[in-house]
Parts: sequence; C-alpha cells; structure tokens
Amino acid sequence: GSPVSKKPCKEQSQELSYGARAKLPNVHPLASKLLRIMEEKQSNLCVSADVTSSEELLQLADSLGPKICLLKTHVDIVNDYTPALSQELKALAEKHNFLIFEDRKFADIGNTVKHQYEGGVYQISSWSHIVNAHVVPGPGVLKGLSAVGQPLGRGCLLIAQMSSQGSLATGEYTQTAVKMAEEQSDFVIGFICGSKISKKPEFIHMTPGVQMQAGGDGLGQQYSSPEDVICNKGSDVIIVGRGVLGASDRLEAAESYRKSGWEAYTKRMGQTGQ
Amino acid sequence: GSPVSKKPCKEQSQELSYGARAKLPNVHPLASKLLRIMEEKQSNLCVSADVTSSEELLQLADSLGPKICLLKTHVDIVNDYTPALSQELKALAEKHNFLIFEDRKFADIGNTVKHQYEGGVYQISSWSHIVNAHVVPGPGVLKGLSAVGQPLGRGCLLIAQMSSQGSLATGEYTQTAVKMAEEQSDFVIGFICGSKISKKPEFIHMTPGVQMQAGGDGLGQQYSSPEDVICNKGSDVIIVGRGVLGASDRLEAAESYRKSGWEAYTKRMGQTGQ
Repeated sequence: GSPVSKKPCKEQSQELSYGARAKLPNVHPLASKLLRIMEEKQSNLCVSADVTSSEELLQLADSLGPKICLLKTHVDIVNDYTPALSQELKALAEKHNFLIFEDRKFADIGNTVKHQYEGGVYQISSWSHIVNAHVVPGPGVLKGLSAVGQPLGRGCLLIAQMSSQGSLATGEYTQTAVKMAEEQSDFVIGFICGSKISKKPEFIHMTPGVQMQAGGDGLGQQYSSPEDVICNKGSDVIIVGRGVLGASDRLEAAESYRKSGWEAYTKRMGQTGQ
Repeated sequence: GSPVSKKPCKEQSQELSYGARAKLPNVHPLASKLLRIMEEKQSNLCVSADVTSSEELLQLADSLGPKICLLKTHVDIVNDYTPALSQELKALAEKHNFLIFEDRKFADIGNTVKHQYEGGVYQISSWSHIVNAHVVPGPGVLKGLSAVGQPLGRGCLLIAQMSSQGSLATGEYTQTAVKMAEEQSDFVIGFICGSKISKKPEFIHMTPGVQMQAGGDGLGQQYSSPEDVICNKGSDVIIVGRGVLGASDRLEAAESYRKSGWEAYTKRMGQTGQ
C-alpha cells in the first residue's frame, strides 16, 4: 500500500514484477535468471563497458558489479585482448551476480554467424551469457546462432529498434523482429528497443542510449532518460554507456543510474520509492 | 566486331567497360583501382575465404590470388589469428594484385564502429582495403567508419540486399542504402546486392551467394549462377565461397568461376568469348 503516484505510468494494472516474470512457466531459464538478479539487486541497470584496455574493463566490472544486472561488452574494441580477459570477466560476473552481454550485433547469414559466435579469437559463446543479432538477414541468422548458443543455455536479444538517428529499424522491420522472437523463444529472450514492443512478459526489453540529460553525440546517437525509458516507454533495462564512463566518479554515477532506473520501475509498478 | 549474342543482356547500349569506369572523373580512387585490376586480370571473381586457420587462409590467398580481383575475409572466424596474418595477407595482395575485403558487416552506432574498425585485436582499417556496413543504424554508421577509413584511402560497400531467405533488405530499405551511398561517395564505393541498384557507373555492385548450381544450404543461404548475376542482374562482381572452397581442386574451381564470370561480363558488353 503506497500512495498513488501523481503521474502514473501506462498499463500499470496488468503489470507483473520482474520477480513474478522470473517464475512464469514459459520463461527462458536465462531470462528468468536475469529477472531474479534484477529483483534481488534492485537494479535494471546495464552498463555499457566501452573501454579499450583489459585492465580498465576488469576494473569497471569489479567496481560497478554490485550495481548492475548486466555488463555489456564490445570485446572487439579491446586492444590487448587475451582469452584470460573473458575468463576473468566470467569470474567477476559470478562474484557480483551479474550477466555478461557481448554486444556483437551479429548480422550475417546463418553459416557465418555460427563460426563468428563459436570460434575465432573471441569464442564468444564460451563466456557471454547474452548476445544480440540484427534481423535484416532473415531468420537464418537466428538458426545459425541458436545452433551454437541454445545447447549452452545462452540467450539472444533481437535488435528491433536502434537509438541512432535515421535508423531503419522501425515499423514493419520492428514487427518482423517481434514475430521472429516469438518463433524462436527457446533462444531469444528479448529485444534491443526504444520502447515496449511485445506484450509477452517472458521477453525482456532493453534500451540503449540512456543518459540523465537529453542530447546526442554528433555521430547520430540520441539519448533518453531512465524515467522516460522505464516508466513512459515500458522498457525493462536501461543501457548506460557514456553517462557512467564519462563521469568523474563512475561508481557514484552507476549508483545514481541504478537508483533512477529502479525508482522509475517502482513508479511503473504503482509504488513510490523502494 | 563480334557476332551478336542470341540472348543479349539488358542495357548493353549504354554500358561502360570496367576499364572505362576506372577512368571516370568522379570515381573513388579505390574503386578505380579495383576496376583496373578486374580489367587487367579479366576477373570479376571475389573468393570468400571462409576458413578457420591462418595457414589455410594464406595458402588460399597465395594459390587463388592470380584468379581473383578481391579476397573476402572473415578474420573473426580464424582460430589462430595473429597480427602477422593480416600483414602476410597484405603482402599476398600486392604480389598477386588483388584487394582485400574484410566482410565485417559493421552495424552499430558511429562511435562504436569507429573503434571496431580501427582498434581491437584486428585493427581492420590497417590492412583491409574494403569493408562493408549495414544501413540499419542510419547514416551515423558511415560517419563513424569514414572518420577512420577515408583518410587512409579505404572504401566501404553498403549492404543493400542480402542473399539469405527472408532478408529485410528490400524495397525502401534498399533505396535508402542507395541514397546513403550517394551522399557519402567519398567513402562508399558500391554495394552488396543481388542486382544492379544504382545507375551511377562509379559504384561497384557485388553479389554474394554465387554458385554454378542453384540451391541453398539449410541455413537460409540461396544461390545464383555467375551468368544470372552478371548478365541478367547487372552486378559487377561475383562472390563465391563454398563453390570454390568445397571443390576437390580449388584452383580449378576458381579458374572455372573466373571464366564464367568473365564470359557473362563480355556477353553483357555485347561481345562473345574474351
């Protein structure tokens, strides 16, 4: 019983909590695990660890680990990558109870993405709980990825919308992504999107381009606030990069985004505060 | 003066030769270089070197080098990659007069692709003459890539269509790719596509999924023949992967694709034979 919020969010009536969604009979085990982490840590914050040195990436993961549900990586921008890095990331994910999401944006035909996911220098499938894929190649991209990831219990996010200016992931393109996800829900656990696009509570919606202040970066990126993304747009996870990395105190910034994201969520659930 | 072909290709009247297109005043220097190589080597064949060992990749590049205008790589599926591999590939490209095309399919926001192109373990911009990009993120992806590649004289292909079943790169999506290419012709040199989509002879059209026999691979790939791609569809370069790699004699297979591709081109130009 909390007082009614002055500006209630949409659809609050039928809204399930992260914890309740984790227990749904048809939820993917990995989605369930992430939703449980979110509930336990009171965090819907994914930090985008866009750094170019192994040491800095590990330092970020270790220091921000307690604040996040998910760490998003671009392992292919790390200049001194060795397989030890991904093993250490895995250990930090266990230590701090978060998942790893390699933001590879697979976008090739099935036979190629299979190799890119499993092999090469990075062996992404061996350490990243979650990856993502563009839907532009058609369903083959998912067939190829799931052949590798599904037996390992991995999950995939489909890129249904993008935060960049002039993105073509709109309208029918977005709808096709939703349909494709529904057809492969043994591997797809949700979406990269700007707002809630599927009514199925088993899918997790994640939104990049989140910052406290609105604006852009001069290379097409456009920002939204945690409140707008979680409360108005109905997404589940805020993905924050430069809002945290560019702060003088990254831990303080991460805590402030965790708090904003969680407050927006509790507001959406019809409560105030935590 | 050759006898008229029984089944002439479309648009043969206004068709310029590869060599003539290389000399157009507004042609990108790298496109010009590729067109000259094609003319000199009588080859519009790009081999897709989808192999997972450095040794095999180098062996392929060295043995098939004389037959090809372009070597397409997926450096991120090579299990034993070291920077020496890309340096040796570069040397083989000079030895045999072909260009390198890393088929990375960049598909992220501008700030991210900049790092992925320039940095990380692969430092793609330092050795690959040509890369490609999806247009789904909007024009920012090109802004980011060209900030790195344009000063180095590199070129980019936009993925306007895909050979995989159910691809969303059709209709308006394809048209947007053409428009985006025209707006950034200081960096974009052409397209990955199924057929000719731009009338500007400065752009080079390249078509993947080429095999002598029609069919598919069970993961959504669909094949077209060299004759169909070059002569009927009006593309410029055939990209052949499994048709060469799966042959018992790869050199013989490459020569046979080179010959088919070139015959289709000469037929299109209104000539017979070479």
